[in-house]
Amino acid sequence: MLAEIIAVGSEMLTPHRQDTNSLNLTAGLNDLGVTVAFKTIVGDNREHLTDAIRIALHRADIVLLSGGLGPTEDDLTRECVAAALGLKLQPDAVVLASLQARFKARKIAMPPNNRKQADVIEGAQVLPNRNGSAPGQWLDTTFPGALGQHFRKLVILLPGPPKELTALFDDECRPRLAAILPPRHLARRTLRMALIPESTVDARCAPIYQKFTDVETTILAGSAEIQLHFLCTKETLVEAEARVNEVAELVEHEMADEIFSANGDSLEEVVLLMLDMRNLTLSVAESCTGGWLGKRLTGVPNSSRVFLGGAICYSNAAKQEFAGVLSDLLEREGAVSEKVARALAEGIRRRTGASLGLSITGIAGPSAPTGPDADKPIGLVYIGLADGEDTQVRKLQIPGDRDRVRLWATQHALEMIRLSLQ
Amino acid sequence: MLAEIIAVGSEMLTPHRQDTNSLNLTAGLNDLGVTVAFKTIVGDNREHLTDAIRIALHRADIVLLSGGLGPTEDDLTRECVAAALGLKLQPDAVVLASLQARFKARKIAMPPNNRKQADVIEGAQVLPNRNGSAPGQWLDTTFPGALGQHFRKLVILLPGPPKELTALFDDECRPRLAAILPPRHLARRTLRMALIPESTVDARCAPIYQKFTDVETTILAGSAEIQLHFLCTKETLVEAEARVNEVAELVEHEMADEIFSANGDSLEEVVLLMLDMRNLTLSVAESCTGGWLGKRLTGVPNSSRVFLGGAICYSNAAKQEFAGVLSDLLEREGAVSEKVARALAEGIRRRTGASLGLSITGIAGPSAPTGPDADKPIGLVYIGLADGEDTQVRKLQIPGDRDRVRLWATQHALEMIRLSLQ
Repeated sequence: MLAEIIAVGSEMLTPHRQDTNSLNLTAGLNDLGVTVAFKTIVGDNREHLTDAIRIALHRADIVLLSGGLGPTEDDLTRECVAAALGLKLQPDAVVLASLQARFKARKIAMPPNNRKQADVIEGAQVLPNRNGSAPGQWLDTTFPGALGQHFRKLVILLPGPPKELTALFDDECRPRLAAILPPRHLARRTLRMALIPESTVDARCAPIYQKFTDVETTILAGSAEIQLHFLCTKETLVEAEARVNEVAELVEHEMADEIFSANGDSLEEVVLLMLDMRNLTLSVAESCTGGWLGKRLTGVPNSSRVFLGGAICYSNAAKQEFAGVLSDLLEREGAVSEKVARALAEGIRRRTGASLGLSITGIAGPSAPTGPDADKPIGLVYIGLADGEDTQVRKLQIPGDRDRVRLWATQHALEMIRLSLQ
Repeated sequence: MLAEIIAVGSEMLTPHRQDTNSLNLTAGLNDLGVTVAFKTIVGDNREHLTDAIRIALHRADIVLLSGGLGPTEDDLTRECVAAALGLKLQPDAVVLASLQARFKARKIAMPPNNRKQADVIEGAQVLPNRNGSAPGQWLDTTFPGALGQHFRKLVILLPGPPKELTALFDDECRPRLAAILPPRHLARRTLRMALIPESTVDARCAPIYQKFTDVETTILAGSAEIQLHFLCTKETLVEAEARVNEVAELVEHEMADEIFSANGDSLEEVVLLMLDMRNLTLSVAESCTGGWLGKRLTGVPNSSRVFLGGAICYSNAAKQEFAGVLSDLLEREGAVSEKVARALAEGIRRRTGASLGLSITGIAGPSAPTGPDADKPIGLVYIGLADGEDTQVRKLQIPGDRDRVRLWATQHALEMIRLSLQ
């Protein structure tokens, strides 16, 4: 079963906006065993849209359209689908009444334009929209092939706003599609690894996952991490789960410590959980990252069980004031140095009473450092981790621009905690 | 002049990855006066891709393809373009030599697969790729219409990696397109506003910008901000700039203080610049935002001229330790209170010696607060700003999830500084 998704709207042909609905629709269709073979993005143009629908009807079994169901002159999806199929549009009394009720409830007169939202394609079922005025439409029809045979086609019209589209797809389209398509059971697993090149992951894991021809494997490079997604479909859920678990376990064995999460959790969630299970607390002293690590940690609900806070010690004075770093150390070694990283980690731990103190100090660029750090390269980062007995410091040279250096510094810091607890 | 962009790659038909290259290409084409009328996303499938190329040749004057130029069996763009146009592929000796030199420099033998990267479509110009192994191709050709006439078509093949694609488009395609297309001059202006609903901006500004039928206006809702983009094309740059300036000035007059930037600068850049011009320094005490405001401020190069740092005072103990908030105040009022916001702002200012101290304390959710804050709603946020003479505190009720509450809190904090300095 092949599907095509047509996103309708001139704004998605500008440099500013993108079709994102198709990602959710694709996930939903894949779950049901349908492959998306084409996506088309077309503007609010009658001729272009009608042609695009005809092309989709030729090459796909299921055609999903998003957008173009509003009340304005630019909203052409209903008319163009009807034209492409040679079907009539007819006003639906129930939809019209519900539109009128909607406006009445808001105590405004319904503009005449809105009547067109009640137009339904001959033979289509109306998909009621709880979240907006434009209902969807579901059309189970046929379309002539080149040799005159008639092929069954499903044509689905959905409104453009993501909240409306997602609800209509989940509530109205999934059950209808499931009733038509053969039953399937689907299992997924995601493994996440930080700070490792995609090519390394692929070189080590491909020999494993390539043997699982019934498991679909996707490697995604994210923000300073790599994700391996496994997906398998079988007659029963037990079989599907057994296969994804089998491949995941072999890959986990191969990658071992590199894998920080086998259940989809983020690195900050994993680190906070590990600390919580050991009854440990954490504080941070951030220089070049300026609070980014704290932002990530506090993005996790209930992180306050573990994370006490710390200092954004961007200036040297703040390093002295909040972590007790001595000014002659800063002058002698420079703020970006092994000794200052150590002093920051130990100082913030002492000042907050946390079990662990973590520090990040580095040169994020783009301009070259001055003063005692003047001879140090952009991308140089020190990370310190103090536990009261021992303080480790890691020296890193992170390539890339200011944002990348800072993001990777926070990722290295979290990995340093995770590996030290493992 | 109509263009179609075809993004080639099965990964872009999964729920995980999207074509983003087309946004940059669209911006570049629009600059040159070319409208993108269609975007197609198609997988690594010979039949699908060849058909998609034929369809594009029928309906567009310029067809840009991204991706599918690698050395693997799945890389089919060269072959499918040649097939769609009925042209031959021929190995290019110069490209082959440069590929071989590339591998030799890395001291590895060139795999036989890579030879296909030297295949060039009959009549195409090679676009050398400084950043990767796959060169682009530029083909100025004709394609038969339905009545047998031949139409001129430009077909451009570009590699998929964004860095390679952007460089090839800018360096090789722009000058070639500019030489073919009529000359045009284009002016842009962007106005940015924080914390205001899109509908309010539109209701107040549409009556102004709608009168400028020769200026293309786009409203974009971003992260806790609204952007108004104006774009105008004229015979001369002076005329184009005059028109965008005219509409921008009228809108600036209408929106007045709401506009934080008329040159594209971010809110943090504007605030840092205003502080720097006044020789003021800033420190922060962040509770619920956990460092997010610091992260934003330190994302701007040279922010250290103004931003000293501060405290991530997530726990009550950190509020006491780093900003000198008294424990009985925390117990009596709760951490999320007008008085604690005041004490945090004044305390962090005093401790860092900054001109301004800013504090954020709030309930980000999703779980309900406990202790002295137990009766307070999720989304309640206090922001304090102390300048040594006076301390203002704003009370906010921010709707949305944890991430939204936290992001909007940082945005409100920056706006509070901006408006206090204006």
